[in-house]
Amino acid sequence: MQCFSDRLCRAVLDKKTPLIVGIDPVLEQMPPMLLAKKNVGKSSAAVAGLFLEFGLAIIEVAAPLVPAVKINSAYFERYHSPGVSVYRQLIKAARQAGLLVVGDVKRSDIGHTAAQYAVAQLADTDYTDLVENAGPDAITINAYLGSDGVKPFLDIASAAGKGIFVLVRTSNPGGAEIQELPLADGRPLYLHMADLVNRWDTSVGEYGWSSLGAVVGATTGPSLAAIRAAAGRAVFLIPGFGAQGGSLSDCLPALDARGLGAMIAASRSIIYAYRDAKYAEPAEIDWRRAVEQALIDHKTQIASLVKYA
Amino acid sequence: MQCFSDRLCRAVLDKKTPLIVGIDPVLEQMPPMLLAKKNVGKSSAAVAGLFLEFGLAIIEVAAPLVPAVKINSAYFERYHSPGVSVYRQLIKAARQAGLLVVGDVKRSDIGHTAAQYAVAQLADTDYTDLVENAGPDAITINAYLGSDGVKPFLDIASAAGKGIFVLVRTSNPGGAEIQELPLADGRPLYLHMADLVNRWDTSVGEYGWSSLGAVVGATTGPSLAAIRAAAGRAVFLIPGFGAQGGSLSDCLPALDARGLGAMIAASRSIIYAYRDAKYAEPAEIDWRRAVEQALIDHKTQIASLVKYA
Repeated sequence: MQCFSDRLCRAVLDKKTPLIVGIDPVLEQMPPMLLAKKNVGKSSAAVAGLFLEFGLAIIEVAAPLVPAVKINSAYFERYHSPGVSVYRQLIKAARQAGLLVVGDVKRSDIGHTAAQYAVAQLADTDYTDLVENAGPDAITINAYLGSDGVKPFLDIASAAGKGIFVLVRTSNPGGAEIQELPLADGRPLYLHMADLVNRWDTSVGEYGWSSLGAVVGATTGPSLAAIRAAAGRAVFLIPGFGAQGGSLSDCLPALDARGLGAMIAASRSIIYAYRDAKYAEPAEIDWRRAVEQALIDHKTQIASLVKYA
Repeated sequence: MQCFSDRLCRAVLDKKTPLIVGIDPVLEQMPPMLLAKKNVGKSSAAVAGLFLEFGLAIIEVAAPLVPAVKINSAYFERYHSPGVSVYRQLIKAARQAGLLVVGDVKRSDIGHTAAQYAVAQLADTDYTDLVENAGPDAITINAYLGSDGVKPFLDIASAAGKGIFVLVRTSNPGGAEIQELPLADGRPLYLHMADLVNRWDTSVGEYGWSSLGAVVGATTGPSLAAIRAAAGRAVFLIPGFGAQGGSLSDCLPALDARGLGAMIAASRSIIYAYRDAKYAEPAEIDWRRAVEQALIDHKTQIASLVKYA
């Protein structure tokens, strides 16, 4: 069984990009041509069904172009059990389409409870009553609870060849209030967290990267390079490219000379490309063509800075 | 609409105890007399159905004795969409039985995504296709992402008269690795978090307590009193009493002279009381009688230290 980091490196080299697509569906932002077909009314299952159709289309467009998708659980949990089922159905579909899948769940707990979350999220199951038996290839977690809040996730991920991304420095302005707190030793808290990630890391794949990664925002500028220095083998999951205003050049220190070591995620600027005047013409014909064009444009933009052999 | 903290204070005074029961069902620990009736096989819905029966029995026993139950989402998410449905069905049943409900979900995210989690968890909905439209009265969150990871939860909770508990100092040994880090100003990180809770707090109820509370472990000893000094109006949710070895007298600084200001949670030592030799006789007749006896014993133990008018 290949470890997550090796599968990711191979996929990045294959697709020649670290770009990944975030799937965060919001009812009010669904393409009008998709919404028009359905009257979701007061049915959570109807909304979930719409998200399934939306997500499957994104996956179909993304599969030949990028190594992975990041699916954000919150947007599905919002519609309760039908939403949770669709979240898992999309994971299964993305994996079947040859994409790696990051489940963006930001879970946190300790010991036995953390193990429940880890199994819930990461395990591939064989329930006869579920269509959604495939778990994602990696998930995001919040490590405020310390190593006994990380180890259960790491153990279950390692055993299954899957990956974990620990929140280190997030892309939001308020992240600084806690993550940039200066510690007694002079370092900001996020660098201590990066050190812990480095310490918790137990294995490294053929490509020299670990399956214990770090979430580092694209908007955090110079701190990204400092985190790379502290956690040298951790793959970075970098959200905030595109809609959140992160600069691409700020992400470059995350990558090695081969262009490996990070996933750069864009969500709204791709999945809602139908709203962008730039893509009006493909969107008028088919909203999925706007997604495809936006994806190609994002990929081209990254390719101007990161070269693959 | 009464705020969460007032509803809680009234319920604590009514039941004359700050004790609450944690519902964290694990298949392997279900009472044998309950398991014997079912062959769950490879069906996640069958396990979820078992948890529903187990949880409903706990709720029925607990309702006349305690102000609230804490239901841990992880143990239900473990069984995917059928589990998530049962989690919400138990919330509804507990509320109908007159109990307050804390959803122990430890969610974290920022901005729009945090709002999705907040709605998912806290909102009472009116979907025509769901039996599980009632949300819990309060939830736990992880604030490592800072104020823009807290405000969406707080806004949605405040509008609905519900509560939020921020993880401040958790009961696990590894919690110290991050939460007790000394900051440049000499304080440990958890006291900074307690200060933030105090600063984020926007309102206080008739009883003088805020609906923005703090999770503080029973095993953290003297730090609990320091957190109380920093976050004077925050209701404490104190897990770790009972099975996790927390000392009851360490919890006392959390409470005011009326016995208000905290919920003290016990889970395994109550819900799995059938395994305790002490309760062998009621358990042989009916596992629910062991739960009831354990609950009464926990309540008596607390009553020896905390008096209600």
